[in-house]
Amino acid sequence: MKTKKIFLPESEIPRQWYNINADLPTPMEPPLHPGTGQPVGPDDLSPIFPMPLIEQEVSQERWIDIPEEVLEKYLIWRPSPLYRALSLEKFLDTPAKIYFKNEGVSPAGSHKPNTAIPQAYYNKISGTKRITTETGAGQWGSALAFSCALFGLECKVFMVKVSYYQKPYRRMMMETWGGTCIPSPSSETEAGRKILAENPDTPGSLGIAISEAVEAAVMDEHTKYSLGSVLNHVMLHQTIIGLETQKQMAIAGDYPDVIIGCAGGGSNFAGLCLPFVHDKINGRDIDIIAVEPTSCPTLTRGPFSYDFGDTCQMTPLLPMHTLGHTFVPEGIHAGGLRYHGMAPIVSQLLLDNLIRAEAIPQMETFKAGINFAKTEGFIGAPETNHAVAATIREALKAKEEGKEKVILFNWSGHGLVDMAAYDAYLSGKLSDHVLADGEIERALSDIAPLPKPKQFKG
Amino acid sequence: MKTKKIFLPESEIPRQWYNINADLPTPMEPPLHPGTGQPVGPDDLSPIFPMPLIEQEVSQERWIDIPEEVLEKYLIWRPSPLYRALSLEKFLDTPAKIYFKNEGVSPAGSHKPNTAIPQAYYNKISGTKRITTETGAGQWGSALAFSCALFGLECKVFMVKVSYYQKPYRRMMMETWGGTCIPSPSSETEAGRKILAENPDTPGSLGIAISEAVEAAVMDEHTKYSLGSVLNHVMLHQTIIGLETQKQMAIAGDYPDVIIGCAGGGSNFAGLCLPFVHDKINGRDIDIIAVEPTSCPTLTRGPFSYDFGDTCQMTPLLPMHTLGHTFVPEGIHAGGLRYHGMAPIVSQLLLDNLIRAEAIPQMETFKAGINFAKTEGFIGAPETNHAVAATIREALKAKEEGKEKVILFNWSGHGLVDMAAYDAYLSGKLSDHVLADGEIERALSDIAPLPKPKQFKG
Repeated sequence: MKTKKIFLPESEIPRQWYNINADLPTPMEPPLHPGTGQPVGPDDLSPIFPMPLIEQEVSQERWIDIPEEVLEKYLIWRPSPLYRALSLEKFLDTPAKIYFKNEGVSPAGSHKPNTAIPQAYYNKISGTKRITTETGAGQWGSALAFSCALFGLECKVFMVKVSYYQKPYRRMMMETWGGTCIPSPSSETEAGRKILAENPDTPGSLGIAISEAVEAAVMDEHTKYSLGSVLNHVMLHQTIIGLETQKQMAIAGDYPDVIIGCAGGGSNFAGLCLPFVHDKINGRDIDIIAVEPTSCPTLTRGPFSYDFGDTCQMTPLLPMHTLGHTFVPEGIHAGGLRYHGMAPIVSQLLLDNLIRAEAIPQMETFKAGINFAKTEGFIGAPETNHAVAATIREALKAKEEGKEKVILFNWSGHGLVDMAAYDAYLSGKLSDHVLADGEIERALSDIAPLPKPKQFKG
Repeated sequence: MKTKKIFLPESEIPRQWYNINADLPTPMEPPLHPGTGQPVGPDDLSPIFPMPLIEQEVSQERWIDIPEEVLEKYLIWRPSPLYRALSLEKFLDTPAKIYFKNEGVSPAGSHKPNTAIPQAYYNKISGTKRITTETGAGQWGSALAFSCALFGLECKVFMVKVSYYQKPYRRMMMETWGGTCIPSPSSETEAGRKILAENPDTPGSLGIAISEAVEAAVMDEHTKYSLGSVLNHVMLHQTIIGLETQKQMAIAGDYPDVIIGCAGGGSNFAGLCLPFVHDKINGRDIDIIAVEPTSCPTLTRGPFSYDFGDTCQMTPLLPMHTLGHTFVPEGIHAGGLRYHGMAPIVSQLLLDNLIRAEAIPQMETFKAGINFAKTEGFIGAPETNHAVAATIREALKAKEEGKEKVILFNWSGHGLVDMAAYDAYLSGKLSDHVLADGEIERALSDIAPLPKPKQFKG
């Protein structure tokens, strides 16, 4: 019987997160204050984030200790298992070895609690009573509600109105953990009231929900705001994925030739690959691939520029690949990949050719997800299926080339609360969306008035 | 940092199932043919089950080898982790140590694949092309569809019509694994057509769905039928849970004083406790508790008698505790516990005082489930919450008595596809149901014409 899962004992859980900022060949350019055009400082951020997270956001330390209280909560599901996809290999008849890290074993069903737990913890010790956030499909909101329950914090989630009604299960998960989830725009904030007055029937948007969550945090001294992707401290927390995987690959006696993750804001991709990027900087030859949808091709077609993180222009300007902060992608079912920007760290790695990016159309990702479910058993989130599809491409390429490659990918979450997407696929209601050419020009005009980073690529 | 999870290495997975029939102090009475009143033989069962399963159903061998092909599929999620509920202990401020076996880590989210996998395997090697079954809320149907996908078998699930429309996510899971799920009653069977002609708007019932699934199996020589609980071979397969747990408790250096599982048909309860019952027969002092809803109190209030397994009187007569085969419990949200009968093995253990039973009202189980989710993180299935509630009762009793007891329970599945039940609870739409006194008399009159087992208790 071949080994299927590689478990790491709890005693072997990594005790430090890895901070890639200490090792980047090209230092990242700073976020800018949109009003002054100057780099933002801790004081600009302290109304919405607690100080320990602000410090992590700008830290240049290579290794950052994981607090004991965070490790204790991580043990609820971590170390997560590394799987060998033996049945998928057989189905594809490939000489490649395929490994995947199963991040679907967390109570919320995805990698998101890796950062929700430390964010809740640092808020708790900083005296925060309540955390606000926004959520689209609800993966992030449910992860934060779960984490706040463990630390006895209140949690208020502004959920995009159309998702709130279309995807009630995630709202119910948040409420089961004691969180509050309200459809956005709401009448609880100035931003929400303004939009409702103009357009009472708006379906809402992530941009509006961010505005409401930030406003609710700014207006109350005991309330802070939390973000589930994009920022440096989020990428930092997620490195626990890759650090565990390195130990597990060593147990398996293999090292990856190819590493794959899907990328929306970039957090699960970065979480798996950053510790391996460290190896790559030090001479290892690894092909690292970020996979995005063809309908939201931030890395493959978006320019690198300064842009706002949200539609309503409330955030600092971030140096990143972007399709423009007003970009609205087609309504594909991988809600977590429908973001106009990309984490500055991931963007910088692409500029430095340490990673590459690939866009895959929706239909191929569902086909891949179903083949995965029928062989490996687990039903993946629609986002995760992008990584599965890219893995299948690489495994078939290895077969053509007759190469015994080792492929590793991040199975970032299960899809049991996203079954409606599979239903739509199986009943023939989905199709592919490719970004129209004019969209890139529109994105460029959108960001034209903004300052340009040194490495600007239009 | 205290150990949270005890993992068993894959190499330590049990290689044999434990058959309690070899050790029962009182041998079980045989199932009877309802027409002749004589014990049913292999020939009576061969139209619907493959021969290896019929042999297991009547086997007296203590240990039965698990085929290599089954072990290989078990490794997709087994050995499942044994957890120490440290946060729940702290929350309850109890001196008791609480352990739970997490069966929610399977792709279908419950313990059901433990028997679905071997059932699919034995059908495959016996030449079966298609398996039919019935399902209520969908836990069993999805587990069988998953297992059939792994062995390349067709799977057809007759799902109770009202659940088919109310709980679409489980239907979608079955379809994602390639299964067919149709609302019952359907026009595909004689039984279904007859009922539809009489009552086109019927919501359906498990009894009707069983009739349809059995008929579909009998009518085609390459099609067999599969049952997810009650029968001896199902209990046998589920003992993998308790056998793993025994090894894990040894690693933890503890032995349970109290063992708890929820019981509908009895399979997850038996799966955990049977190997420990073996120890109890050999002198160990263990308090073993089967937990059922007050609205369907089969073990606590039903007589022990011969009765049909289904409403439509198509199955053999089984010796068991029963509320009568026409009993229709209140619409509580733990669908898997709404069964009128109980596994003959579990019934016999109760008669022999090797286990005891406890009924808990619905509201207490949801409260328990939410306290569990807020401390241990995981959201349990409504069925599972019955075991959680009984565990909390025992832990608080240990606190009162000042005893450092070791409590072990089966966390039989997660509730991520059952969130509507939590929503109903949180929004105040649920209440408790206690069986009316007249119901027991009705049950007795229902079974009065049937033969009586030696140990009949009216």
